[in-house]
Amino acid sequence: MQFLSDNAARVHPKVWAAMQAADAPDRPYDGDALSQRLDAAFSELFGREVAALWVSSGTAANSLALTTMVEPHGGVVCHREAHIEMDECGAPGFYTHGAKLLLAEGAGAKLTPAAIEAVLGGITRGVHQVPAQAISITQASEYGLAYRPDELAAIGALAQAQGLGLHMDGARFANAVAALNCSASEAAWPADALSFGCTKNGGMDADAIVLFDPEKADLVRWRRKRGGHLQSKGRFLAAQVLALLEGGLWLENARAANGAAGEVAGAARERLLYPIEANEIFLKLDAGERAALRAQGFQFYDWDDAVVRMVTAWDTPQEHAAALGKAIAAL
Amino acid sequence: MQFLSDNAARVHPKVWAAMQAADAPDRPYDGDALSQRLDAAFSELFGREVAALWVSSGTAANSLALTTMVEPHGGVVCHREAHIEMDECGAPGFYTHGAKLLLAEGAGAKLTPAAIEAVLGGITRGVHQVPAQAISITQASEYGLAYRPDELAAIGALAQAQGLGLHMDGARFANAVAALNCSASEAAWPADALSFGCTKNGGMDADAIVLFDPEKADLVRWRRKRGGHLQSKGRFLAAQVLALLEGGLWLENARAANGAAGEVAGAARERLLYPIEANEIFLKLDAGERAALRAQGFQFYDWDDAVVRMVTAWDTPQEHAAALGKAIAAL
Amino acid sequence: MQFLSDNAARVHPKVWAAMQAADAPDRPYDGDALSQRLDAAFSELFGREVAALWVSSGTAANSLALTTMVEPHGGVVCHREAHIEMDECGAPGFYTHGAKLLLAEGAGAKLTPAAIEAVLGGITRGVHQVPAQAISITQASEYGLAYRPDELAAIGALAQAQGLGLHMDGARFANAVAALNCSASEAAWPADALSFGCTKNGGMDADAIVLFDPEKADLVRWRRKRGGHLQSKGRFLAAQVLALLEGGLWLENARAANGAAGEVAGAARERLLYPIEANEIFLKLDAGERAALRAQGFQFYDWDDAVVRMVTAWDTPQEHAAALGKAIAAL
Amino acid sequence: MQFLSDNAARVHPKVWAAMQAADAPDRPYDGDALSQRLDAAFSELFGREVAALWVSSGTAANSLALTTMVEPHGGVVCHREAHIEMDECGAPGFYTHGAKLLLAEGAGAKLTPAAIEAVLGGITRGVHQVPAQAISITQASEYGLAYRPDELAAIGALAQAQGLGLHMDGARFANAVAALNCSASEAAWPADALSFGCTKNGGMDADAIVLFDPEKADLVRWRRKRGGHLQSKGRFLAAQVLALLEGGLWLENARAANGAAGEVAGAARERLLYPIEANEIFLKLDAGERAALRAQGFQFYDWDDAVVRMVTAWDTPQEHAAALGKAIAAL
Repeated sequence: MQFLSDNAARVHPKVWAAMQAADAPDRPYDGDALSQRLDAAFSELFGREVAALWVSSGTAANSLALTTMVEPHGGVVCHREAHIEMDECGAPGFYTHGAKLLLAEGAGAKLTPAAIEAVLGGITRGVHQVPAQAISITQASEYGLAYRPDELAAIGALAQAQGLGLHMDGARFANAVAALNCSASEAAWPADALSFGCTKNGGMDADAIVLFDPEKADLVRWRRKRGGHLQSKGRFLAAQVLALLEGGLWLENARAANGAAGEVAGAARERLLYPIEANEIFLKLDAGERAALRAQGFQFYDWDDAVVRMVTAWDTPQEHAAALGKAIAAL
Repeated sequence: MQFLSDNAARVHPKVWAAMQAADAPDRPYDGDALSQRLDAAFSELFGREVAALWVSSGTAANSLALTTMVEPHGGVVCHREAHIEMDECGAPGFYTHGAKLLLAEGAGAKLTPAAIEAVLGGITRGVHQVPAQAISITQASEYGLAYRPDELAAIGALAQAQGLGLHMDGARFANAVAALNCSASEAAWPADALSFGCTKNGGMDADAIVLFDPEKADLVRWRRKRGGHLQSKGRFLAAQVLALLEGGLWLENARAANGAAGEVAGAARERLLYPIEANEIFLKLDAGERAALRAQGFQFYDWDDAVVRMVTAWDTPQEHAAALGKAIAAL
Repeated sequence: MQFLSDNAARVHPKVWAAMQAADAPDRPYDGDALSQRLDAAFSELFGREVAALWVSSGTAANSLALTTMVEPHGGVVCHREAHIEMDECGAPGFYTHGAKLLLAEGAGAKLTPAAIEAVLGGITRGVHQVPAQAISITQASEYGLAYRPDELAAIGALAQAQGLGLHMDGARFANAVAALNCSASEAAWPADALSFGCTKNGGMDADAIVLFDPEKADLVRWRRKRGGHLQSKGRFLAAQVLALLEGGLWLENARAANGAAGEVAGAARERLLYPIEANEIFLKLDAGERAALRAQGFQFYDWDDAVVRMVTAWDTPQEHAAALGKAIAAL
Repeated sequence: MQFLSDNAARVHPKVWAAMQAADAPDRPYDGDALSQRLDAAFSELFGREVAALWVSSGTAANSLALTTMVEPHGGVVCHREAHIEMDECGAPGFYTHGAKLLLAEGAGAKLTPAAIEAVLGGITRGVHQVPAQAISITQASEYGLAYRPDELAAIGALAQAQGLGLHMDGARFANAVAALNCSASEAAWPADALSFGCTKNGGMDADAIVLFDPEKADLVRWRRKRGGHLQSKGRFLAAQVLALLEGGLWLENARAANGAAGEVAGAARERLLYPIEANEIFLKLDAGERAALRAQGFQFYDWDDAVVRMVTAWDTPQEHAAALGKAIAAL
């Protein structure tokens, strides 16, 4: 019974089917019929004209999205525990040719206007310091917390006032939308670029970069090729993304994952580090308790000495979640 | 009847089957059982200890391989028409942080020791010029020509004498091996790193970087992650590569593609720009002849005003190749 | 009697005097009174509002100027023998984060619209190839040839039609102006950015970047600092540049250098590779002739097996030039 | 009476004399006789064989030195307030092609083994995180504190045990040596590379990179050229450095600067943020006190709301220091 990562989950049968349907000769790269449908599909989802490009990893999506808003000598305000800072081996700096990540504080890995302003306030040395040019937030955050529309609006207002771009790492955007019970547009507003995660949510190896300013698409197309991310049989990536969008499968999968997380968490309220607003559960468990759970066949990662992380996915069996909940309650 | 590109070909059924077999929870990234088997599989293929890593594009494979042998202030000798120069939008320069491509001449896009030495001879200005640190050749070349073992040995001897690394772009390595009727090892010797193409040869989106000095693997692992190419469900890439290696499917597919090319070319000997040593056919056809073929349903790309390029693949129907041959003969 | 390089020349006494006058406490970096005068001084020289920044080398000037007009995935059309290609160890690629130099042909290292168009015509593969975004020319060229205003206008028209920036490497801009007997503005029009050389022309270690679009100055200020070129006692660089501008010393020095070159060349008309339009002399001399001259105390560099390069400077003694002329005539 | 910065100080007369003595034709770049003497001069100073190269700024020195010890995907542990983090606009990241600065805590901007280990302890995610490859410390620190030999030895032992390079930013190395009253070698041991500051200490625009592993010199030579820092009349930079080394002028100047700082500080013991171990004075002064001093003609920078920074230089007049001391005592 694995609660290690949504990366470990399976590919959804409808995604498989879409990939197999794509297995016929078509134009290479992103010239195929499926890739050409991405803009329209995401424009419909967000209710405004956007451009969308497939890539094969969230790290590539984040890094390429940042190239649209930060220069090599600029900086990106992000949380100290943001994925782009902690888990991407410097990829954002690589793709932006050196832009620095300017680290902000904030509970649950969420940024607030005050936390962002604290970083901006330290930039006073003119040309001797890297100027902030963008803000990056994660929806849902690295601790599984969702930004509410009013929180996003406040950050957006600050970004606009300061002339900063706004990037949203949406590796678990679907889970946030499901938890917020709002529209995709409400959960993304007023981001300039969104990394729309699919791989963790029933896909195989496709994520999408959504550009709310479609004029930035050409830049990303050049940089995607230059990063070695323009796959020659791109139709298989487009097929994954479209399969998830179609009929709302992306949201259905996220609801399933969130539901499983809720099931586990319901049995462990007093141990929760944060409320459950997506599909990640951070629990206070001591060494003995961890061992006891593992002895019963539950797999999960240690976060630190006091806390473990459990992650559910679209395919987490209901009975596994229930069993884990029970096992925690029985500790 | 498409002869546009082997990129347009389908995914081999055995590759599909392997991917589906991989669809069970396993460790993320390249920690899964399949990814862990790559080193051994390629070591067996080449008869010596190598390290092998999957990536999702040939451009990424070439660029990452070059990082093992050239510094940011260095240069790579390659052919003026090499894929890394003409078709990768500067990706090698991006991944190597600025290494220059030093362009050599040579018939059929093949390098010779003399052509390489002509480039090296122009580097005389010490620190004012970029020093050559590597050579990159393409097996089979951009015009579908294979390097014979003695040609490789001569280039290798020069590389060794000059202290240069040797990279082989093997987007169509399988076709070269099939044409040369030699072992994989003979067709790669004495390269330090090989981009082993799978996508054009029955795969979906996987290629492999083979490092003949396994100690370089860690560097490539860091750089792969930093380039956004460490996919979280890497097992699906490993599955593709292993499926092609298993039972020699990679060679079988290449032989089929080469066979189809031979079938076409057999009917057009006097029009061939180069002998057929892989799965690409460059034919002298004038505008009227092209139109006549297209009117009969044959798809292919113009190369320039005098020449067209036709490419066969593992799944080119025998009857399509035969029909094209006939149609050319009848022009 | 040295004709090796204008780099080997002395610092002009008025430049020394200006530097010493600057030796009093003032604001660091470019906040001092002298640095603040550069914009106005160059605006006056060029008869329009420009921004100007000091740097300590021509390589830095060229590279930083290029950052205003080319993106990391873009390309710069320049001559195959341009200094930025041949003598700067990849610095332009370093500062632009990877932009490629796209090499054009042309007699005397001069570009023509036709030569530029030949390069542009080879860029047909969309996102797979680096797009041209700028043109770089050298005034005077690497063979000491000056672009006439009508030649510049033709290149400028092409640049504008294609949406390309235009950079001028003016390491010997002063010599070109002196030879053309035109205004500075006429010799630079319609460049977007000019590397205005001072070091070879009586300075010590200062050159200027002149930006004809002053709004680009901030970008260059950030990048100059980031390149380690924002010297803390910048007043000494500003002093050099201003001393050369004041009273037309820059032009006076260039005329002296050109005059010495003319003196030498006058005695060697039939040996000249190119007409003398600046302070460089390329002469056909065989090995015996070179040895004979060197035996008489003349120092110069071999260019290749058939040609030598001789360079005069602002301080080349008239009698040295006359003696060299005589010696050549006597060969 | 200016206490703004040692950057604002004058050039020492002996440095002027050496520069003027260098004003005769010689080989360009670093081929001249003076540049060729740097290795020997620094080898003598440090009592072991080193390589030394001039550059024109401390930022360039630091950045180039770091290229010898960190890869693009690596990291450098430094203090949160280190000059390379706070004041160089990302230059270290530019020159290292993306290496991250990993920020450590520590009183007075000094690192300790414990502070470094705290950073290293957070690097646990394998290829997903940037690996530490070097440590950078500042001698004297950004708050004017000197590392004692035993402190250096402890950091060096940690560096060695972890396989990390050790860089020393010695913008005020001379002041530290003067304060420690030890040899240059003792104050630098066991650094692998030292940025030896001259500009703040009586020079005009020259600093030196000292490489304790001389085999690294070639790499720095290439990168220096590529950064546009290989000045064509390098003899003037070499002259400055040699003039300061000769007869111990560098130490004499530093002692004068430290002495002036001591004079000021002696009158303000209870206001000092840190003991005086170099030529920087950080004083607790409220707004009214600052105004009072400024009204008397003293110039200095605010550090923050509670603290001001005053810096002395080799040429700070003794009477200015005495007057400032008195004025502070009288507040």
